[in-house]
Amino acid sequence: MPEPIDPVALTSALIRCASVTPADDGAIDVVAAALSAAGFRTTRCDRGGIANLYARFGALGPVLGFNGHTDVVPVGDAAAWTHPPFGATVAGGELWGRGAVDMKSGVAAFVAAACAWAAGDPARGSLALLITGDEEGDSVDGTPAILDWMQANGERLDACIVGEPTSVETLGDMIKIGRRGSVTAQLAMRGVQGHTAYPHRARNPLPALARLLDRLASRPLDEGTAHFDPSTLAITTVDVGNPASNVIPAEGRATVNIRFNDMHDGAGLTAMLRAEAEAVAAEFGVTASVSTRISGEAFLTPPGPFTDRVAAAVARATNQTPKLSTTGGTSDARYVKDHCPVVEVGLVGRGMHAVDERVPVQDVRRLAEVYRAVIEDFFASS
Amino acid sequence: MPEPIDPVALTSALIRCASVTPADDGAIDVVAAALSAAGFRTTRCDRGGIANLYARFGALGPVLGFNGHTDVVPVGDAAAWTHPPFGATVAGGELWGRGAVDMKSGVAAFVAAACAWAAGDPARGSLALLITGDEEGDSVDGTPAILDWMQANGERLDACIVGEPTSVETLGDMIKIGRRGSVTAQLAMRGVQGHTAYPHRARNPLPALARLLDRLASRPLDEGTAHFDPSTLAITTVDVGNPASNVIPAEGRATVNIRFNDMHDGAGLTAMLRAEAEAVAAEFGVTASVSTRISGEAFLTPPGPFTDRVAAAVARATNQTPKLSTTGGTSDARYVKDHCPVVEVGLVGRGMHAVDERVPVQDVRRLAEVYRAVIEDFFASS
Repeated sequence: MPEPIDPVALTSALIRCASVTPADDGAIDVVAAALSAAGFRTTRCDRGGIANLYARFGALGPVLGFNGHTDVVPVGDAAAWTHPPFGATVAGGELWGRGAVDMKSGVAAFVAAACAWAAGDPARGSLALLITGDEEGDSVDGTPAILDWMQANGERLDACIVGEPTSVETLGDMIKIGRRGSVTAQLAMRGVQGHTAYPHRARNPLPALARLLDRLASRPLDEGTAHFDPSTLAITTVDVGNPASNVIPAEGRATVNIRFNDMHDGAGLTAMLRAEAEAVAAEFGVTASVSTRISGEAFLTPPGPFTDRVAAAVARATNQTPKLSTTGGTSDARYVKDHCPVVEVGLVGRGMHAVDERVPVQDVRRLAEVYRAVIEDFFASS
Repeated sequence: MPEPIDPVALTSALIRCASVTPADDGAIDVVAAALSAAGFRTTRCDRGGIANLYARFGALGPVLGFNGHTDVVPVGDAAAWTHPPFGATVAGGELWGRGAVDMKSGVAAFVAAACAWAAGDPARGSLALLITGDEEGDSVDGTPAILDWMQANGERLDACIVGEPTSVETLGDMIKIGRRGSVTAQLAMRGVQGHTAYPHRARNPLPALARLLDRLASRPLDEGTAHFDPSTLAITTVDVGNPASNVIPAEGRATVNIRFNDMHDGAGLTAMLRAEAEAVAAEFGVTASVSTRISGEAFLTPPGPFTDRVAAAVARATNQTPKLSTTGGTSDARYVKDHCPVVEVGLVGRGMHAVDERVPVQDVRRLAEVYRAVIEDFFASS
C-alpha cells in the first residue's frame, strides 16, 4: 500500500509546472502518476493540444466525480512577485505560487482525498476524476473533451464536485449550487456615411446605438430568484473609430455582456437583444445586426439530498455551515451540469489571478479533509 | 498696359502647381506675378510654412476685398482620374484638375476681374486681395495670418467677397450671406473598472455615455431662423477600446459636432454640453468631462445695401437672381466677418474634393464677369 499523499507536497509539485494555458509542462503527468500509484485507471483524453486526464477507481455505482484544472493564468509582472511564481515557496505558513488558489491546491486536495478513500479498499461506489489543462482558456478542449470521451466509452457520473475556490472569508463558508450564465453580444447599427454639415444627406447610426444601449442598460432583466441574484447587463465597449469630426460614420458597434440567472437562457436573450435592436433601428431608419456568443447557460442544482449531504460534510470538516450560493463567474461546472448534479466546493478565492497568489498551508490540508468527508458522506448515504 | 488676363489660362497655371495643403508649389507666385504686372502692390504674409499673399491696388477708400485660397485637398486615388489631377487638361469644354472648382478658378476669376478694373485707371476706391495657401488644412496660418498682417500695417476692408463655390445648379443661383458655426466636443464619462460578473463592485461609465448621447441627439437645438436652417448635432464617434468582454471599462469617450446658426455661440454650446453631461453623470454616479474646439462662430451679413448690390451684380452677369443662403460648411469667411461685411460668390460646387474635379470653361469666364460686375457696382454706388 502506497504512502498517503500529502496534498501540500502534491500542490507544490504542480506549482513547479509552468502550466499557463495551453501549456501543461508535465502537470497532468504529476497527478496521473499519483493516481496510478493508488490504483486508479488513468486515461489521457488530450484534444487540440490540451492535456486532459480521466481517472477512475472502482467498478460499481454510484459514481462520484471530481472536476478541476491544472492550467493557470499568466503570472503578470513576474518581477513583482515576492517569491517566484513557479517556485512553490513555503513562507509564513503559506504556499506561494501561480495556481496556489486557482486551483492546483484544489486538484491536489481531491486527489489526496480520493487516494486515501481508495486505500481503504471500499466495498462499493466509484470515484471518477476529470482533470483538465484548459479551463482558463477557451476551455473547448478541456472538460468537454473529457466528458465526450466518457460518453463514448460508457463512463457516467451520478454526481460531481468541482474543486474551484468558492469560499469567501474562511474555508467552507460558501459552496456553489449553481452559476449564472454568460452571453456576450456584438451589436451593430449601420446607416449612411456623410458630412456633418449636410446631415440630411447621411443617416447617422450612432443615435440609434446610443438609444439601444440606454434602453438595454436601463431595463432590469428580472428581479432575481430564491437562489439567484438579478441578472445583469454590462456594456463593455462601444467602438466607431472615426477620426474625422466632420464625418458622420456609416457604422457603430458595441458589446454587452449579460450574466443571467435560470429565468433566462442564451437563445432567449439573443432573441430579446435582436428584437430591441431592430425596434430601435426602425425608429431611426438604420439597420441593426446582433450576434451572440453564449459562454455558458445558467444552471442550478436545486437544494435537496445531494446538496444537503455535501453541505453537511463541509460543516463536519470545517465547523461551519456553508452558504449555498450561485454568485460569481462561470466555471467548468457549466459543462458537468449537463451530465449530473454538480456542486462546487473549494478554497477562499482571495488572491486568485493576482501577483503573489498564495494559500495557507493549513487550508490545503483542511480542504483535503473536506473532500474526504464529502466522499464518505456520499457513499455512506447513497 | 499689360494684356488682359485670361482666367482660364490663369486657372490652368494654378492647377499645374501641386499645392496640396500645406504645399504651395509656386501657386502663390503665379498669382503674385499676375497682380504685380497689373500694378498691384503685393506682400507675402507667409506664416508657419504657409504661403500667403496680400495685394492692393489703389490708395483711396472704400476698400473692397476678395478672399480665396490656392491650396487644394489631396487627389485621392490618382489612378482613378480620367485626366491627370495636376494636368489642367481641357476636354469636352471642361477644364480638369484638382482645384478646378475649389477654388483655383475662383482665385483666377477674381484676379482677372481685379486686374481688368485696375487697367481702367479708376478714380476712386481700392481693391485688396487676400490669397492663402491654407484653407483646406487647419487654416490657422492662412487667412488669419493675412488679416493679422493687415491689422499690424494699417490695412483695412470695407467689405469683402469670398470666392468659394456657392452655386448649386447653375452659376449665380446662390450666394452665401452667412455661415453656420461649428463646434466639436469631446465628451468623456469616467467610472470605476471591474469584472462583469461583479458589476456592483464597478461603476460602468457607458450607460451614462449612452444616455447623454441619446439626449443630445434627440433634442432639437432650435427651429431655425429667417436666414438659417435649424442647428444640427451629429455624434461622430464613440470609442472605448475595451477588448475584454468580461471587463467593465473605466472610461468611455465620444465626439459630437454641432453646426449652429446665429442663435448660438461656441461658448454657450460648450456650457450646454457641460451641463447636460454633468446632469447625466450625476444620475449615474460617474464623472463627466467636456472639452470643445470652436472651428468658427456662426455669422450673418444681414440682407441690406451690400448684399443687395452683390446680388444685383450677379443677376446682371448671369441673368438670374441669386438665392441668399447660409447653408453648407465653414469657410474663411468666418475670419473675414470679424473685419467687415462678407458675402460669398462662386462656382457650382459639384465635384469639389472628388476624383475628376472639373469646371466648364465657360463658367470660369462667366465667373470673372460676375466679379467684374460686383466690383463695378460696389464702387459705382459707394
